[in-house]
Amino acid sequence: MDSPVVRVGVVGAGFVGSALIELLTDSSRHDALVDAATAPLELVGVAVRDTAKARPGIELSLVTTDAMELFERNLDILVEVAGGVSAAREVIEAALSRGVSVVTANKTLMAEAGTELAQLAHAHGADLFYEAAVGGAVPILRALRTSLAGERIETVMGIVNGTTNFILSQMTIVGSDYADALDEAKALGYAEADPTADVEGVDAAAKVQILSSLAYGTSLAGEEISREGITGVRALDVEFAKRAGFVIKLLGVAERVGDTGLSRRVHPTLVPVEHPLAAVHGAMNAVFVEGAKSGPLMWLGQGAGGHATATAVLGDVLDAARNRVSRRHDVPFRVNPSLTNVPVGDLRAVYYLSLDVQDRPGVLASVAAVFGRHNVSIQSMEQSGVDEDARLNFFTHDALTSDVVATVTELRALDAVDSVGACIRVLSRGDA
Amino acid sequence: MDSPVVRVGVVGAGFVGSALIELLTDSSRHDALVDAATAPLELVGVAVRDTAKARPGIELSLVTTDAMELFERNLDILVEVAGGVSAAREVIEAALSRGVSVVTANKTLMAEAGTELAQLAHAHGADLFYEAAVGGAVPILRALRTSLAGERIETVMGIVNGTTNFILSQMTIVGSDYADALDEAKALGYAEADPTADVEGVDAAAKVQILSSLAYGTSLAGEEISREGITGVRALDVEFAKRAGFVIKLLGVAERVGDTGLSRRVHPTLVPVEHPLAAVHGAMNAVFVEGAKSGPLMWLGQGAGGHATATAVLGDVLDAARNRVSRRHDVPFRVNPSLTNVPVGDLRAVYYLSLDVQDRPGVLASVAAVFGRHNVSIQSMEQSGVDEDARLNFFTHDALTSDVVATVTELRALDAVDSVGACIRVLSRGDA
Repeated sequence: MDSPVVRVGVVGAGFVGSALIELLTDSSRHDALVDAATAPLELVGVAVRDTAKARPGIELSLVTTDAMELFERNLDILVEVAGGVSAAREVIEAALSRGVSVVTANKTLMAEAGTELAQLAHAHGADLFYEAAVGGAVPILRALRTSLAGERIETVMGIVNGTTNFILSQMTIVGSDYADALDEAKALGYAEADPTADVEGVDAAAKVQILSSLAYGTSLAGEEISREGITGVRALDVEFAKRAGFVIKLLGVAERVGDTGLSRRVHPTLVPVEHPLAAVHGAMNAVFVEGAKSGPLMWLGQGAGGHATATAVLGDVLDAARNRVSRRHDVPFRVNPSLTNVPVGDLRAVYYLSLDVQDRPGVLASVAAVFGRHNVSIQSMEQSGVDEDARLNFFTHDALTSDVVATVTELRALDAVDSVGACIRVLSRGDA
Repeated sequence: MDSPVVRVGVVGAGFVGSALIELLTDSSRHDALVDAATAPLELVGVAVRDTAKARPGIELSLVTTDAMELFERNLDILVEVAGGVSAAREVIEAALSRGVSVVTANKTLMAEAGTELAQLAHAHGADLFYEAAVGGAVPILRALRTSLAGERIETVMGIVNGTTNFILSQMTIVGSDYADALDEAKALGYAEADPTADVEGVDAAAKVQILSSLAYGTSLAGEEISREGITGVRALDVEFAKRAGFVIKLLGVAERVGDTGLSRRVHPTLVPVEHPLAAVHGAMNAVFVEGAKSGPLMWLGQGAGGHATATAVLGDVLDAARNRVSRRHDVPFRVNPSLTNVPVGDLRAVYYLSLDVQDRPGVLASVAAVFGRHNVSIQSMEQSGVDEDARLNFFTHDALTSDVVATVTELRALDAVDSVGACIRVLSRGDA
């Protein structure tokens, strides 16, 4: 840096970008930002797709359609909030290889190429921060990087997708079924026209990968995360869970298994109502961390929204600015391949299963025999009649997941079983 | 620093000190700590009161009874976890004036002399960190200093005292009265023999002062915090609150009032059950922050305990170590006297009032007249008979606190009123 001013360029002026620009150029916050950054921040350029669009509050001379042109403005920090993968990657690589620090909210890119980008940053003495990529406004990544840097993390689990949490909250509070709750989420702008990435857990899996890299030193990119979405969750499952003292949440989990194993997965979960994650409603996000010494910790906040996300981006910009002023950069990102991936099948858990069966004598006996053959012990069973059919709801004891899966497969083939409606993992009350 | 090793001295080897020493000397964590600190940490001395006490895991050659003697060991960082005020202040001043960075868990000292100590640190190029002083393991102070440094904070409110939260939780969950819940807290080690500092809100007030200084730039020391404890909270208040959809919590609050005002206070509060703070049970602590742009954020974790507190201390040690290695120190602490103190009487709020009155005609009319004379409008009233007496429970509409206080004073003087049992502020559902 040649001057005592930190020069910032922004790629993308959508909801997050324009909220950030508003924060950076708000004169009433100027002194506070100078204090926090240890130098004045100057917005020197904004790259947008379409210059014709009116952008109140952004000086026209700053706007360009060529993101690469920003590098001619002597940048210290590039903020990438345009989204997408290939163009974003190109501009971020261009920045880092010039030693320009990068702040991005791009979870997809980070989960695809994060390790390489982090190494590129380190090689060129630049920072790469991406707080807004997980949990929106929730400042969990910096906490993992700094406050908990010396802690042995046992479990990270979170509600990291607001769309699915909104849908499940509606199903819990209003009693809607999945399709209606999804429609409402779309109407309110919480779900996209094609909701696949959210409801199938793809978005949550990218965030699990990022959380895991900071908590356990695993690679930032290309890791296999076991994934199950919420499309199979029925109103009656939510209702049964509620009666049993649980709420159904889509959790992203990264947890140690023994001393050398690590399980990473996304799946609907029955969460005990007294667990702090059970109280996270609507589009809010939360990340729960269990440290070996710290005990349980939780962070909660808005998972989306231009302004909320922009505050996380701004926190990163200030951090990067302080580093520029003191001519240092962040602790290098290290991949520490000491933990091996544990497949979901090898994990033990309590499961909730719901079967539609024919209502005739002997059915329960034949169903119970299937559980028994696969070493899955039944903790409790509740039968309810549905016309001439019946529904059986089970809680298993702690069982090997592969055994539960084999049980479900055999149950499906059983004459007396019409369908297996649910097989959902239960978060043990001891994990709270 | 002359060598690539960061030399750490610890004053105090009680629960927190010995847990910290265990973390610093755990060989299985050595590499992770070197990564996080960007250099090896070396424990070079431990000052204790009594060398005769067995201290497993601490090399005898490290132990001294003279804290000042630690400075002969070429310290980079001094950790003060002995507690107390005058001796702690002396050793911290000695460290800072030698340019040695300080990490402390001492909320009382910080709330008494924090501003001076922070200025001393800055003058000598040292860090002064005190994450463990508020919320135990909860990393809220670093978040305010870094992630939220650019945010305009509207409200900080927290459950920052585990003793009182345990007592109120017992009263809520088990239905105990205050005295029994206090006894149980003592038996479990959550309350001290003399519980005054906890139950009268003194401890919470010190933490509000510290939170306020980081959120609003107010002075770290000597600020006036309005304070009301939980000794007057009755089982029947808790029960009434529960029926109305609230839990009673002791909150420490620092919030903006208009553009130039700041209110800081500690008092029992009726918190709506759907508010995230309502789900914070037992000895857990939580801090809820409302930012202008971030929206609601909450941090939750263990407020006490040697190991949990030691993780917060370790986070600070790592931060200070990184700064030593890169030869910089933290952003200077600034007192920004732009906000003026707003007395509690000038605040508007909904109140819950409970009166024991004589059960005879005309009583409600005369009581209601008192409310009316002081411009306190009644939102709802519930009457319940108690022997020949009656109890009246009121929710007011939003009212000026000084008017509510005047109402209570006049009600107390009224013939028909035996006693005013409760006058407790209600957190509006809109504040969630």
